[in-house]
Amino acid sequence: MAYEEFTIEGRNAVLEAFRSGRTIDRLYVLDGCQDGPVTTIKREAGKQDTLIKYVTKQRLDQMSETGKHQGVIAVAAAYQYAEVADILKIARQKGEAPFLFLLDNIVDPHNLGAIIRTANLVGAHGVIIPKNRAVGLTAVVARTSAGALNYTPVAKVTNLARTIEDLKKEGLWFVCADMDGTVMYDLDLKGPVGLVIGSEGEGVGRLVKESCDMTAAIPMRGNIDSLNASVAAGVLAYEILRQRLQ
Amino acid sequence: MAYEEFTIEGRNAVLEAFRSGRTIDRLYVLDGCQDGPVTTIKREAGKQDTLIKYVTKQRLDQMSETGKHQGVIAVAAAYQYAEVADILKIARQKGEAPFLFLLDNIVDPHNLGAIIRTANLVGAHGVIIPKNRAVGLTAVVARTSAGALNYTPVAKVTNLARTIEDLKKEGLWFVCADMDGTVMYDLDLKGPVGLVIGSEGEGVGRLVKESCDMTAAIPMRGNIDSLNASVAAGVLAYEILRQRLQ
Repeated sequence: MAYEEFTIEGRNAVLEAFRSGRTIDRLYVLDGCQDGPVTTIKREAGKQDTLIKYVTKQRLDQMSETGKHQGVIAVAAAYQYAEVADILKIARQKGEAPFLFLLDNIVDPHNLGAIIRTANLVGAHGVIIPKNRAVGLTAVVARTSAGALNYTPVAKVTNLARTIEDLKKEGLWFVCADMDGTVMYDLDLKGPVGLVIGSEGEGVGRLVKESCDMTAAIPMRGNIDSLNASVAAGVLAYEILRQRLQ
Repeated sequence: MAYEEFTIEGRNAVLEAFRSGRTIDRLYVLDGCQDGPVTTIKREAGKQDTLIKYVTKQRLDQMSETGKHQGVIAVAAAYQYAEVADILKIARQKGEAPFLFLLDNIVDPHNLGAIIRTANLVGAHGVIIPKNRAVGLTAVVARTSAGALNYTPVAKVTNLARTIEDLKKEGLWFVCADMDGTVMYDLDLKGPVGLVIGSEGEGVGRLVKESCDMTAAIPMRGNIDSLNASVAAGVLAYEILRQRLQ
């Protein structure tokens, strides 16, 4: 696989990484550290919407491979995130109605990897994840995706609800997964569609849900109340594919 | 949750656990240890088809909570496995055509837990797993099943192919998941059915596959060659439910 995660340590190296346009997944900063160079790095991180975590010196020392972190460690991905426009372009080039996955704060990297794997196999054109709070494309995600990350583009956006509004102007419909929705077999899921999957614990967020055109429910015949997030994504995605194949 | 995994250490305690009929998932024995009491314990383990693992003294010392393992540690489940007959009885009592999952050597406990969770929600009457090689009902499985283990019975059998032959006499049909099969939408999956899911790496074993009546393929539109095992189980199980709901 082409993907590898690695750390960049020390003030100059981290600042240079940001300025070169490299994708930084997370930035660890020594808690309480507010001098000039660190402030500059935090400003660059802000421009990229990189997640900043404030940690103790002990934690930084543990993470450090060089022993010379100077209060900052960045975790970078060799993987390049795509733009949403790239994903739409792929659909156009294939002459297919766009089929996107939007993941509202999936936090388990195994689930994210399994969902990207499903997105590839169901013929989706790309996956959109939010920049903050959710898990990024870590090494575990790459491994669990079983190679799908090399084929299926993943875009990171600042605001999922805003991205949905933008994509509606491109003609996409959005269906979100939720128990209180219409049984999926009764919905028309053909055409250009974005499938919105919520986080493991909380489902789809209120703002994102309100942006969706339809709410699809997976039939439940049991005693417990929800499927694993990657299984739910798979079941819904294959209902979309089934309808498209008809 | 009712389920808890715990260890039993020392020769008398382990032997007594076997003789009381308690379900022992795994037995760890000091490699090379062949004296009388240990041989007796291994014979009891053989009767139950318990998986025996031969390990170093160092490994046993690490696992031991009491420091007095005397060369044997058994891992027991508070969970009681069901019998296959119990599962059929549940279907009869509900007045439904039996719907079973048979798992051919799923080794990842997260996958096993997610599949039991799916089995519950899709309205299956039980899950059958093989005694050897595959993962048992460990604490991780219980947790990942999100409570489904309390409702959906799991039976452990010595030989999956033989169990399939026995169940055919009860009128069940068996469908196994495999890429080279018929696209699942084109199969008639109504009626009493057993869904056979293969292991993560190797799929369904040859003997088990030959025992099945049908081979169902999930449509694949991507670049990689397989879904995550628990996602594949979910997609197939929901196709069965969809056909049953029609």
